[in-house]
Amino acid sequence: MIRPTLDATSLSEAVVSGDTTAVAIAETFLERIQAQEPDIQAFVAFDARQVRADAAQNNGRGLLAGVPVGIKDIFDTAAYPTQFFSPIYTDHQPSRDAHVVTLLRQAGALIMGKTHTTEFAYMHTGPTRNPHDLARTPGSSSAGSAAGMAAGFFALALGTQTAGSLLKPASYCGLFAYKPSLGLVSLEGVKPLAPSFDTVGWYGRSVRDLHLVARVLIPGFAVPDVERRPLRLGFCRTARWDQVDSEVAHDLEQAADQLRSAGHQVSELQLPDEFAGVFDDHLLINDCEGARSLTKEFQQHRAQLSPSILAMFERAAATTWEQETAAKARLAKLGPRLTELCQPFDAMLGASCGMVAPMGLESTGPSDFIKFWGAFGWPQVNIPLARAKGSLPIGLQMIGKFRDDGRLLRTAGHVAAVLQSTTQAQE
Amino acid sequence: MIRPTLDATSLSEAVVSGDTTAVAIAETFLERIQAQEPDIQAFVAFDARQVRADAAQNNGRGLLAGVPVGIKDIFDTAAYPTQFFSPIYTDHQPSRDAHVVTLLRQAGALIMGKTHTTEFAYMHTGPTRNPHDLARTPGSSSAGSAAGMAAGFFALALGTQTAGSLLKPASYCGLFAYKPSLGLVSLEGVKPLAPSFDTVGWYGRSVRDLHLVARVLIPGFAVPDVERRPLRLGFCRTARWDQVDSEVAHDLEQAADQLRSAGHQVSELQLPDEFAGVFDDHLLINDCEGARSLTKEFQQHRAQLSPSILAMFERAAATTWEQETAAKARLAKLGPRLTELCQPFDAMLGASCGMVAPMGLESTGPSDFIKFWGAFGWPQVNIPLARAKGSLPIGLQMIGKFRDDGRLLRTAGHVAAVLQSTTQAQE
Repeated sequence: MIRPTLDATSLSEAVVSGDTTAVAIAETFLERIQAQEPDIQAFVAFDARQVRADAAQNNGRGLLAGVPVGIKDIFDTAAYPTQFFSPIYTDHQPSRDAHVVTLLRQAGALIMGKTHTTEFAYMHTGPTRNPHDLARTPGSSSAGSAAGMAAGFFALALGTQTAGSLLKPASYCGLFAYKPSLGLVSLEGVKPLAPSFDTVGWYGRSVRDLHLVARVLIPGFAVPDVERRPLRLGFCRTARWDQVDSEVAHDLEQAADQLRSAGHQVSELQLPDEFAGVFDDHLLINDCEGARSLTKEFQQHRAQLSPSILAMFERAAATTWEQETAAKARLAKLGPRLTELCQPFDAMLGASCGMVAPMGLESTGPSDFIKFWGAFGWPQVNIPLARAKGSLPIGLQMIGKFRDDGRLLRTAGHVAAVLQSTTQAQE
Repeated sequence: MIRPTLDATSLSEAVVSGDTTAVAIAETFLERIQAQEPDIQAFVAFDARQVRADAAQNNGRGLLAGVPVGIKDIFDTAAYPTQFFSPIYTDHQPSRDAHVVTLLRQAGALIMGKTHTTEFAYMHTGPTRNPHDLARTPGSSSAGSAAGMAAGFFALALGTQTAGSLLKPASYCGLFAYKPSLGLVSLEGVKPLAPSFDTVGWYGRSVRDLHLVARVLIPGFAVPDVERRPLRLGFCRTARWDQVDSEVAHDLEQAADQLRSAGHQVSELQLPDEFAGVFDDHLLINDCEGARSLTKEFQQHRAQLSPSILAMFERAAATTWEQETAAKARLAKLGPRLTELCQPFDAMLGASCGMVAPMGLESTGPSDFIKFWGAFGWPQVNIPLARAKGSLPIGLQMIGKFRDDGRLLRTAGHVAAVLQSTTQAQE
């Protein structure tokens, strides 16, 4: 029996083995969407006829055979408009799919539609609600992809991350998420924001699903052979731990204790003071690069840009070239230093966010713990902690060293098993 | 009197002041194109009617008012097909212009058409000939942009560089060229090859033209205030100087002497042995990232890929994840070291290529001296050396430290003045 809460690995195995079909899967998920989309508003473009047509043509082969996927509306798609949640692009219809969308299709995935993003994947939020509490934000910017996952509208979803855009919604919506190392996944047909950080990532219902998509989108993706037990984990609070409220801190420390009880090593990773400037350097570079990436929109359609984008342009204009260059140079210098400090560990642990999803749809809370590691291009995973029924999700962030993505996913698999993590989608 | 050998700054000033019009300029360049394009084959898509229509609508304002520009066929354009010199994309018509094409248009430029590239900006060459000798290659991959510049088909041209794709054709065709620091120019709507190196750059007839385009495509582009005389220049041969033939070596050393005679300091910059591996690391990363960038074409249309692309896929398949990661880590570690070594200099000097344009159209010669610096994302300029009439062009490479682009262009202006460099376009 197909349920919209099965993971992608189970779904594709069922299709490939002939136990079910893409058509049957599509109908199951369409039913869920039709029932709940009016509340959630995950989609900005959705066409049940198109989904049914694609399902009917699905050949039942491939790593993602018949797996429903949501696509953040920052990826070009030939079958759907691509609007970047900007009135400038209301009528925008790309002529071809983004590279990764093509790869998903070639692997047998069913594209369910385009999901809400904030304006140009920056801060101005859309109408999407958090399925765990409709009064709360799902986080941004990959809001629709995350909320749709939590609501059971698809089994996988694409997002992007420049600051906290993938892991924050994962933390707030209770999802597994994986942001690969910078540069591993093609950005062809993805609207750029800050190229020093922009990365394609995805949501799944299990660590094995994160890995499954990696095999499709990162050709040659490899997992190191060596299995080391116990795991050596570095718990890193960074200089902004005061953002973590007591409920989140409690659950994260409980998770660390569970890992220790299971025989793994969890030790504190203290960073030298020089790392305290990373947050501001990320912000500064994000502003300057974001303004450059959106120059044509700023020149032609200024009146149609949100106040948050205009504020970014103002901060960029107030930043000198030398300040930006110095910020880039500091990060380039700290990167190898961070590698040394993290050498003893298989992966690092920390908070994805300091709080559960805040109330309201306009403000989505800080992304500091996420962007700290993203500043160096390192791979990141969100593990949803097991929580009492009815509690809002809390995410454990796991971080791998640059390009040590295979080890990170393998380690995340062990950690999730110890913590008995599950995606908190409604049954 | 408008001539197709005027630089862009002169042309736009003449338009803005009312001395000429975009229409008159278009006719002058169209005449040149109609006469010589059958020999040169710079264009893969050209439509005189479209050029005339654009010229008639030009408002005569902007930094590039009425300036004819050639666009390498690796940039998406809404008015022309975009084929990447691949049969896979014969019928490919993008729905929108690449970001930088929009910025050029907004600054008043006249798009003259799409210029020949190698297949996906890699190695498989097209029909374009070198205007200095039709039996010789113009270099690759920005072949049509460079040859069209040398033939006087446009006053500026866009290219891209991953290994040597911008500076090699500049060296072979006698053009000023500027490849900015990695990440400064938007790649939106540009076909990716190896994201660790891919950079948009451009050709001009003067250093001031290189700067003019920088002001349009790199908002906030700044030139440092401090003017230091004498210039401190570091002549760097790298570990591959044995590729430089005696004619090129002679002319480059003569140029260094001229700079010394003008009162500037030119000293040898010797690199430690650890830098000898940069060439191979660039190649390895280029292979692995190139294969990832072209995965969808490889999966769907393998039979339509050239042997050189297929060989790249084979090399990528024979490279382990760990080897690629190690190559990236070596470059990340050497970058700050290179910055230290180059600290005494305003800019570095070297060969763009070890030879003049070779005979034939299939092979375009090595790019080692160019990719050495591109491996670190540093900005590069080609200065065409003054040569006896009828001699083939030789290029002096100038390199700036990462993000020190303004200083590089300023220094290049002084160097070009001392060397009395001019673009070697036919009058």
